[in-house]
Amino acid sequence: MANEQIDIAIVGGGVSGVYSAWKLKKQFPDQKIVVFEGSDHIGGRLLSVKPPEIPNMTAELGGMRILENNQKLIVGLIDALNAELPPAEQIIRYDFPVDEPQNLAYLRGEYLRLVDFVTRPDKVPYNMSFLEKGNGPGTIIVNAIEQIVPGITNPDLTEEQRREMTRETSFDGIPLYQWGFWNLLYRVISSEGYQFSMDAGGYDSTLVNWNACDAIPWYLSDFGISPQYQGFTNGFQQVPIALAELFEKDGGEVRLEHRLHGFDYANGAFTLNFANGQTIIAGKLILAMPRRALDLVLPNSPQLQLIRPLINSVTPRPLFKLFTTYANPWWRIAGYTGPDGQFVPVQSGRSVTDLPLRQTYYWPNSDGTPAVNGRAMLLASYDDGNNTGFWDGLRPQRAEAWKTGRSHARIVDPFIGDDDKKTNGKAVTAAQGQLNQTWDEYQAPRRMVDEVARQLQQMHGLDYTPLVKSAAFRDWGEDPYGGGWNSWNIGVKSWEVRDQITNPIAGTPLYICGEAYSDAQGWVEGALQTAEIMLGKFLTPSTNAKQTSNVSQLQPS
Amino acid sequence: MANEQIDIAIVGGGVSGVYSAWKLKKQFPDQKIVVFEGSDHIGGRLLSVKPPEIPNMTAELGGMRILENNQKLIVGLIDALNAELPPAEQIIRYDFPVDEPQNLAYLRGEYLRLVDFVTRPDKVPYNMSFLEKGNGPGTIIVNAIEQIVPGITNPDLTEEQRREMTRETSFDGIPLYQWGFWNLLYRVISSEGYQFSMDAGGYDSTLVNWNACDAIPWYLSDFGISPQYQGFTNGFQQVPIALAELFEKDGGEVRLEHRLHGFDYANGAFTLNFANGQTIIAGKLILAMPRRALDLVLPNSPQLQLIRPLINSVTPRPLFKLFTTYANPWWRIAGYTGPDGQFVPVQSGRSVTDLPLRQTYYWPNSDGTPAVNGRAMLLASYDDGNNTGFWDGLRPQRAEAWKTGRSHARIVDPFIGDDDKKTNGKAVTAAQGQLNQTWDEYQAPRRMVDEVARQLQQMHGLDYTPLVKSAAFRDWGEDPYGGGWNSWNIGVKSWEVRDQITNPIAGTPLYICGEAYSDAQGWVEGALQTAEIMLGKFLTPSTNAKQTSNVSQLQPS
Repeated sequence: MANEQIDIAIVGGGVSGVYSAWKLKKQFPDQKIVVFEGSDHIGGRLLSVKPPEIPNMTAELGGMRILENNQKLIVGLIDALNAELPPAEQIIRYDFPVDEPQNLAYLRGEYLRLVDFVTRPDKVPYNMSFLEKGNGPGTIIVNAIEQIVPGITNPDLTEEQRREMTRETSFDGIPLYQWGFWNLLYRVISSEGYQFSMDAGGYDSTLVNWNACDAIPWYLSDFGISPQYQGFTNGFQQVPIALAELFEKDGGEVRLEHRLHGFDYANGAFTLNFANGQTIIAGKLILAMPRRALDLVLPNSPQLQLIRPLINSVTPRPLFKLFTTYANPWWRIAGYTGPDGQFVPVQSGRSVTDLPLRQTYYWPNSDGTPAVNGRAMLLASYDDGNNTGFWDGLRPQRAEAWKTGRSHARIVDPFIGDDDKKTNGKAVTAAQGQLNQTWDEYQAPRRMVDEVARQLQQMHGLDYTPLVKSAAFRDWGEDPYGGGWNSWNIGVKSWEVRDQITNPIAGTPLYICGEAYSDAQGWVEGALQTAEIMLGKFLTPSTNAKQTSNVSQLQPS
Repeated sequence: MANEQIDIAIVGGGVSGVYSAWKLKKQFPDQKIVVFEGSDHIGGRLLSVKPPEIPNMTAELGGMRILENNQKLIVGLIDALNAELPPAEQIIRYDFPVDEPQNLAYLRGEYLRLVDFVTRPDKVPYNMSFLEKGNGPGTIIVNAIEQIVPGITNPDLTEEQRREMTRETSFDGIPLYQWGFWNLLYRVISSEGYQFSMDAGGYDSTLVNWNACDAIPWYLSDFGISPQYQGFTNGFQQVPIALAELFEKDGGEVRLEHRLHGFDYANGAFTLNFANGQTIIAGKLILAMPRRALDLVLPNSPQLQLIRPLINSVTPRPLFKLFTTYANPWWRIAGYTGPDGQFVPVQSGRSVTDLPLRQTYYWPNSDGTPAVNGRAMLLASYDDGNNTGFWDGLRPQRAEAWKTGRSHARIVDPFIGDDDKKTNGKAVTAAQGQLNQTWDEYQAPRRMVDEVARQLQQMHGLDYTPLVKSAAFRDWGEDPYGGGWNSWNIGVKSWEVRDQITNPIAGTPLYICGEAYSDAQGWVEGALQTAEIMLGKFLTPSTNAKQTSNVSQLQPS
């Protein structure tokens, strides 16, 4: 009973896994390289599906955008992929709409428009300090950051320069990496300024107590200094799928529905045990997995037990997305008539609230333009942190599905709208391009959709909103992901762990990469960053000096 | 190498463990009964220490009170113990001070007194509904509960009658046990009414999304219908210590520093493996442990793996207590001068805030009277739920100490005040009665005390507060407790699990008891309730009918 032997095993079919596979296959065309993915599809936390009856939109149940100016790795990768891909499969981006001044902020029971934060500060129901009043949430946090690390908000600095600054800065005599972001913010802004920034910012988990040394440059990249987002006309999942297809075209192999149970390393080879009973022998092993997925294989993997402190250096942050579709974009009516008699509709970007749904995106057409009539879609709730607890009773439990081999929970009491009934529960829209996941595989719980509909109505100040036609839901808090993103723990020197964990045991060809242990946590850019660092070590395992220089070349600059 | 054989092993030296031991030893004087406790002392989450230089106060780092009128089991137990104990060891109670109208509520940056909730509703900075305005947080929730279960707030009902009502009630066609408390409250009160009840109520975890069928009667017992609290003159820990001593006097044995690693059952006997390498054979096994402690032994205990769904039916809720002492009760000055020219000091009960410290108790003398001059003590922060995250960066990690055999984390950078320096870090006050834990074993982190001092100053509206003289800290989120209390999960029929888990496997003499799986979670009453149910099954293992009647007799009524 000889077990199959391969050269390189890559576990995890998310971006970092298939990117590494694609790169390594080009480097080693004669080696047997296999990507093992636990679910039935490639993409990890990129998951793009087409809503029923709305052909010109793609719902992003996972990652949905990039920061064009800061994220050189993903921009470069897309260019490289487009050079290899046929015309029909080109990866096309659009400018992802930003928040419009007329959008709503329903906070503490008061109806505001985003512009009111600046133009009508006395209407904002937060008891902020003189200096805070009149600013939006982002500005308050950026000003706080400038107090903590003077000079860091200078737009001429590169991200790497900002990271160097936070590594070298102390507050109250204690280095920033030993501070929690929440604790630090509480020292420089009022409690009401903090609460406003949280409530109006739309996210819960970005301002919590994670490592301040990482949180500060991370926040500045995303929210701080004129971010320019871009979305994907045919879905962000196109990127990992293209990588997997090109890897296969080059002779690589992808095996879906292969869940790693555990592994051991002895006599120069890895023995991989899969949940389906298969055993594979591999010369080198790359785990392209986030923390929770590593936690799940750790009990049966002696080498991972040796590096537990490295694995434990980040915290997965639960996050979910719920999309809903309608006969028309009813939210437009929540706009206002300007002094010139012209009606300014609510139609793009997002509105925010302190209700548990937290933020709603008016989903754009595939070219970035707003829906103006006919079928339309909302990212009805994009929710993280404490408020995810509100939905606990209305959605499936997070650790159950994976135990039974499913990638996400089956919904016992799903929402069935008019547009679902038309299709008798079958896949409603042909997958576009290479995408193979369908909307109806991601049903939303009925009670959750009902509650979101109630909160949407309230936050828009409407007594009536039309019935939901269909809904899709993905909770990234479910195993094996554990969270939509991961954050560095307080006290960790992330810049050391980030490099160490890519090849954590001297002399053992075990490699780890992915968003979780990167500088750009929660972003595809982070997955690519650690994949690059890992590949640097993979390709030059013996020369430490060489390795270091490889690493530094790969930093985003 | 014959292993020691005993008749009954009880693992866990908290109230439910030593109570069971005491009762069983009386029933079976000739059997070898041993209580195994992982830490170096008896008491579990009851932990009473004497602060330095304040002989007439006892700090309760764990449970601190009972509800005299509702909690018949603990009241009866104290009567029974006092009948057995010598005069010098009598367990004496005092009326635990309640909130005074002049106490402070610092909410959303506004300074209020508790009385303002009712007398000056327009000063309360929450945008509540017409019906909610003018009520305190407890009244708002009780009114909401009455909307959900009409008639349940009738004070003539017994707790058991209220429990029957919630079991039989549905909301929107769905039984209450399938609802989260937060979700239900959001259906009957405004989001601002909910937020005010949370912020002004002082607790985060009571109003979160736990099983509504249990939360409703639980809330009514504690907060709802004229609760009358009592504290303990010599510390609540006196109760388990007296139980352990009387059990030993009767010939029982207590073994401290015995951490259970795991167990197995075969051929009619349990094999218990302890972390110190010892193996004990026991005929019967009682696990008097909360969920997290069960989780920790589960990987090495095949029988527990069989009942994982029962064990997983509750959630541990992190909670900590931080005490601080001062040269004088400086908070008295935060009172006001009435129309009669008389000064009304702040001196007893608690003040609340939405700052992360959440609630502060002006700690009473050992007879319940307030401190009026000289050394005085605060329960500076009693914090649970989301706000415990604020302190993450300022206190030790929660799973580390227990791994190394310690019952609580060593503080690397402890707060050292004037009253600590006097004693050179030695135990400062002789333990009173049978208490054997000392204040200085529970040092607080320096940065945490500094931050709490800042927030205390802010919430009291003072520009100056005196230096902290000493501080003590206990975080019950640490292993092996996992939380200060446990709450039933949504979807669980607690009344079935509560009984099943006491003797979960037919024909196997394995028993489980404790607060975690009771009707009175977080209360000693709950520990005694499940101990009684468990003992009923223990004593009549074969007759199901008899068992049931035993159980119903033991319900609180």
